[in-house]
Amino acid sequence: MGEIRLWRARAAEYRIGKTKSAQRKFMKNPANIMALALAAALAAVARGGESAQTPDLDWREISEIGTEGQAWKGEKFPYPYARIPLKFKDNVTKNVWANSLTPTGMSATFETDSDQIWISREFLHGNPSPFWFGNSGFDLYAADKDGNFRWLATTPIARIKDNSKTYKLSSLLGGKPRMYRVYLPLRNILTSAKIGVKKGSSFKPAPQPAEKPLVFYGTSIVHGAWATHSGLSHPSAIGRMLKMPVVNLGFSGSAQMETGMAETLATIDAAIYVIDATQNMSEKLVRERCEKFLRRLRELRPNTPILVAEEATSATAWYWRDSDGPYLAPKCAAQREIVKRLQSEGDKNLHYIGGEWLFGKDGEASPDNCHPGDLGMKAMAERFAPAIEKILKK
Amino acid sequence: MGEIRLWRARAAEYRIGKTKSAQRKFMKNPANIMALALAAALAAVARGGESAQTPDLDWREISEIGTEGQAWKGEKFPYPYARIPLKFKDNVTKNVWANSLTPTGMSATFETDSDQIWISREFLHGNPSPFWFGNSGFDLYAADKDGNFRWLATTPIARIKDNSKTYKLSSLLGGKPRMYRVYLPLRNILTSAKIGVKKGSSFKPAPQPAEKPLVFYGTSIVHGAWATHSGLSHPSAIGRMLKMPVVNLGFSGSAQMETGMAETLATIDAAIYVIDATQNMSEKLVRERCEKFLRRLRELRPNTPILVAEEATSATAWYWRDSDGPYLAPKCAAQREIVKRLQSEGDKNLHYIGGEWLFGKDGEASPDNCHPGDLGMKAMAERFAPAIEKILKK
Repeated sequence: MGEIRLWRARAAEYRIGKTKSAQRKFMKNPANIMALALAAALAAVARGGESAQTPDLDWREISEIGTEGQAWKGEKFPYPYARIPLKFKDNVTKNVWANSLTPTGMSATFETDSDQIWISREFLHGNPSPFWFGNSGFDLYAADKDGNFRWLATTPIARIKDNSKTYKLSSLLGGKPRMYRVYLPLRNILTSAKIGVKKGSSFKPAPQPAEKPLVFYGTSIVHGAWATHSGLSHPSAIGRMLKMPVVNLGFSGSAQMETGMAETLATIDAAIYVIDATQNMSEKLVRERCEKFLRRLRELRPNTPILVAEEATSATAWYWRDSDGPYLAPKCAAQREIVKRLQSEGDKNLHYIGGEWLFGKDGEASPDNCHPGDLGMKAMAERFAPAIEKILKK
Repeated sequence: MGEIRLWRARAAEYRIGKTKSAQRKFMKNPANIMALALAAALAAVARGGESAQTPDLDWREISEIGTEGQAWKGEKFPYPYARIPLKFKDNVTKNVWANSLTPTGMSATFETDSDQIWISREFLHGNPSPFWFGNSGFDLYAADKDGNFRWLATTPIARIKDNSKTYKLSSLLGGKPRMYRVYLPLRNILTSAKIGVKKGSSFKPAPQPAEKPLVFYGTSIVHGAWATHSGLSHPSAIGRMLKMPVVNLGFSGSAQMETGMAETLATIDAAIYVIDATQNMSEKLVRERCEKFLRRLRELRPNTPILVAEEATSATAWYWRDSDGPYLAPKCAAQREIVKRLQSEGDKNLHYIGGEWLFGKDGEASPDNCHPGDLGMKAMAERFAPAIEKILKK
């Protein structure tokens, strides 16, 4: 049982206590007092959570507004917010397919003058992933006067723990139209996701982006593990920084450079492919697959830039290797060697980003020394965004 | 049921499948494949988790080694890792008392040449707070050649979810003695916490610090909410930055400047008191209590520096106020006014730190717009540490 649910339950137990003596008994247990304190704190945090009275709302299914981040427009998908269409099911491994069912990286952008934004959502498996905002929460950004999307609100954790299907994501200043963007959760299979605005308010979906998207293919890191809110996963952050659409093809534990995946990626008309698979591969797999994968992708997309990324330097390398210098793991060396060879054969549009301090230098950017937390996600976005920008301006 | 537990259960279900057809059936459900992928990824992450064979270990209860971060040495506490001694129970509110039972901010520092460090722990309430590393995990740092403690390992999330009582926190390079520091969890009541090293290895507790500690009094923010690992809560980070001992008196939802709390704080011989309570107080409470609190603390500790901190500027102020400039909430203005008055009366050792961008300027530093995540914790540490250093050097 989650901490918050437990503490909320204890607090509820207190509130329904009929007699003063029952309450006194309850208050003798310090854990119960802690429960009340936390419940009160959470209630304060949940400010934007729910009003006593649900106002009259207009609901719109996000897939009908037009989702950003779902490649292959017009194809049939197993779920409205899945990432790979049915016709490619046999092109990819079972693990990639299973991971592709989550709406990772997808968003909806729209203009409204509503003074509240609500969410109504259905997960396929109830709420199997409650333990952090990013995995199960919706993440709201608003455009400032320069058109930059800036963070505004995330599903309150109490709503995630409650498995609330419908809730107020944010109260807003009313009266004037503004652009908003809602990022979908990183790690659950959604069967429905609706945005609600006050009845009678304006609502205009943003035009579908004319630009080609940045396409990220990779591991659980691309999939957004340990980002505290979904909009902070580095592909989404890079999309905001460069003001470009993003397709997130992160497949937890399953990015292993199969040739079928190269062929699948090649069917997307991308601005750039960012390939970030090292962490899911052994040196043997890199030697067997990386070159074939890159050659096949290049064959099918002769002119599209490809940026190959390396596993981030371990923050604990100073300890294990008695040195702060970059340590090049054999599998990373193998991948560098392959990319260099292809470049030397004349591929001018194949690029490489080294792993040195990809998560930054503070040493605390990954709570498990593998997946970046918010510090690591931000550091990655700040490394990738200028590198991509430079490549695209060439 | 937590995501990881669910997925691990599904993966186990697969592994024990007796027949190929049962496995085929299992693999038809994409959620099950996702379970396997995640379980595999977690197994990889849990590298430092557990060996098949537990080696022969010497166990030492941390409270017997000498805990850093527990003020009032020699007093009786309700639990070995509680933060306020029994004799002060009636000086503080019930909520503060309940919150004081957790070992927040405590650590043990020791030298060993063991090539493994193990943890064995008992929580009072099983594991009521499983949902993040920081709340229930132990956090290991190692000293580099300059004596700076740098992050090395955190309880793997799989061990937290399993509620493992005994596990290997980290495999280490053996053969040479080195200083380590283990931070205790932020949010559970510990009845026992033991460090295990390989039998026959050296083990030397660090001498108890001769310096007076930095004493932080505050809200859930000081208590470490949303820090992904316990050593990253900003008081602990500041302690490492300034190489000084820290006492963390963060009480979630309960920092409300009672005069009894000022009297309790004054019994600690602190290098500095950092008072960070605004977020738990209304303007009314600030006006009623802040001046009394500060006057009483000053009366009892005429020469100890006091640094009063303000609530961090909301990252969404640009939206709500149509301005990026600092917004001073009435309760913050009230607190500033009180501190200015006391300063103008001649208190040279009373200092103030404003809330402007205390969580940094990236706008994504707090997933609930109240408690800092890792980005906000780091930004706070980088603001507080030089301010405290400057005050202490005067």
